[in-house]
This record gives sequence, structure tokens and C-alpha cells, in this order.
Amino acid sequence: MREFEILEKFLDFAWAQISRGKADKKSPARCPTFITTNNHGYPRARTLVLRRSNRESDEIEFHTDKTSQKMLSLEKDPRAGIHFWLPRTQLQIQMDVIVEVRVGELTLSNWKNVPNSSRTSFGTIPSPGTVIQKSLDYRQLPDQNRFAILICHIKLIELLHLGAKHVRARFMKSQQWNGQWLAP
Amino acid sequence: MREFEILEKFLDFAWAQISRGKADKKSPARCPTFITTNNHGYPRARTLVLRRSNRESDEIEFHTDKTSQKMLSLEKDPRAGIHFWLPRTQLQIQMDVIVEVRVGELTLSNWKNVPNSSRTSFGTIPSPGTVIQKSLDYRQLPDQNRFAILICHIKLIELLHLGAKHVRARFMKSQQWNGQWLAP
Repeated sequence: MREFEILEKFLDFAWAQISRGKADKKSPARCPTFITTNNHGYPRARTLVLRRSNRESDEIEFHTDKTSQKMLSLEKDPRAGIHFWLPRTQLQIQMDVIVEVRVGELTLSNWKNVPNSSRTSFGTIPSPGTVIQKSLDYRQLPDQNRFAILICHIKLIELLHLGAKHVRARFMKSQQWNGQWLAP
Repeated sequence: MREFEILEKFLDFAWAQISRGKADKKSPARCPTFITTNNHGYPRARTLVLRRSNRESDEIEFHTDKTSQKMLSLEKDPRAGIHFWLPRTQLQIQMDVIVEVRVGELTLSNWKNVPNSSRTSFGTIPSPGTVIQKSLDYRQLPDQNRFAILICHIKLIELLHLGAKHVRARFMKSQQWNGQWLAP
């Protein structure tokens, strides 16, 4: 099994996995976990589809309904986390991110690229999380006004690889992504 | 594909998946994500192995190194989250939990059941998260004094099933686990 001795190669390997998450619909990197705080004091995690990743600009992008509960959390605190666990490669990727929310006209060009079948995710009536009487007491009316883009600006990446030996490292944007090895 | 119209059956289905996580080493329910806050303000998630689940007592159990960073987070705030994403069944399980930490003599009987090959996870020198010069500049000396049991007392369970139709529900211990349907 692969082992890592050079920090830069370890980070390259992780970004290669993230890129596959966008390209390969079956990759577990396609569905990372997005974590916010301020949910009545408890942290809250949910699986989201990775919509875009860009190593050059240190960005990960997700899409969500503007009226979803994660939006309320992000209004209170834009600091969030992203977590990937890739069972086959035995690699964990953790990120600290600051989330920039885009809604309204800024999202028009992205909305054009959302397939009709996916647009139903934006515009559920009543809003996501509202109590309803029966399981299917809701409608889905696609609405560009409900479409929100979450641009996650990556500040920190921590990697853990469970190979024959465990290796762990931390990389920070404030250190120009020069990493440090950590005891696993 | 399966659909849910009765709250109790939806919750039964989720618990059946969690039980499989303990019994079946290949189930993705075996490796949920455990989420804490208070990591320099950012939430932090990591994959952990599910060690025990008990629906009767509303408990999920994990094991960790006493000196790991998640222990510092839990000292500041015992409110945590657990997240499961089961791709084949398209089921997401989210939990709010209060974490009770057990160390020392209280853990002796559990420690006896930890295989030698797994004991190396408790006792890394230097402690997990310490900066080291090279990737393998650490030793693993099993140490019962470093073994900690995290007993997660479940307060809330939220389920989302992405079948032909999406269904979502919330269940709370304070409501005797009687659930409510939510708009997805």
C-alpha cells in the first residue's frame, strides 16, 4: 500500500481524490459531509453533492435551498467544516472553511446549468424542515429565487491515511499550504 | 424502491441499519462521522468505528485516545453530532447527542476485549496531533490509561430517505421518540 514521506505529494494525492469526486459519479468523494454549528447548540452534518472544486482558488462549491436550515446556521456563523472519508484509499480529508453565500442574480448563470430533474431540489413547499402531517404533504416547484450557491473558501486541510503505517498532516492557507506532519 | 408512510416503521428501518453497522464489517454504518464544535471556532468531523449501539438505552459508543483533540472539544462542550450516510439505501441519519466520557478503572472490562492489534490506537507517542518532523516519527505503545470510551446519549434523530419520493422525519427523546414528518 502507498505510503507518504513528502508533504507536497500527500496533498497532491488528496486533491486528486477530490477532483475524481467531481468527475466520477461513483466516487465517495462526490458526496462529502458539510458541517455547521449553531443548530440549537449542537453541530450538524449532512451529505451534500460536490458541485465544483478548485485547488488554485482554494474553493469547494455546494448548492442548497435558500430556505434550508443550514442557511440559518451560516448566517449566524460562516465557519464550517467539510469531511471526506474514502474507504478504498483509506484516506480522511478534513477542511476548515469560510462560506460565502450567493443568491439572486449572481446565481443566474449557474441555474441555467442545473438540469430540470435537479431543479426540484430548490423550491419545496413548504420550506425544508417544516412540520407536515403526512410524509408526502409537500410539493416541489423549481424556483431560481430559492437557489443558493455555497462557496467554501478553504483555510485548513488535515489528512489522515490509514496505510500499513498511519500518516497524518496539516496544511494551512496562512502558511501558503506548506504542511506539517502530525502524530496520528 | 421502499417508501415510508408510518413514522415508527421509518425509525425501525434506521435502527436496523445501525445494528448492521456493528454486525457487518462492510456496512457503511460501521464508520459514521462524529462531529464536535469548539475546534478554534470551526466544527470538526472525523470517521470513527461504531463500537456499540443500543436502542433501548439510546446509546452509541465509540473509543478514542484520551489525549486526542476531540477530547479537548468534548471537555468544553459535550454536545456532539453523529452522521450516517448509507449510499445503497439512500438513507441519511443525523443525531444530536450528549457525550459521557469514561476513562481509567471504568474502562478495564472493555479494554480486555480490545484486540492487541487495535490497542496500538491508544498510546501513540507523542500524543495525536503533535507536530513531528517526519511522517513516521512516532511510536505506538498500547496503554490502558490512554483508552477512553465515548458514550453518546441520543437526544434527537433526523432521517432523510431519498427514494422515488424524498421523505424526512424528526424524532426526539423528549417526545418519547414519537416522530414528526418534515418537508424534505
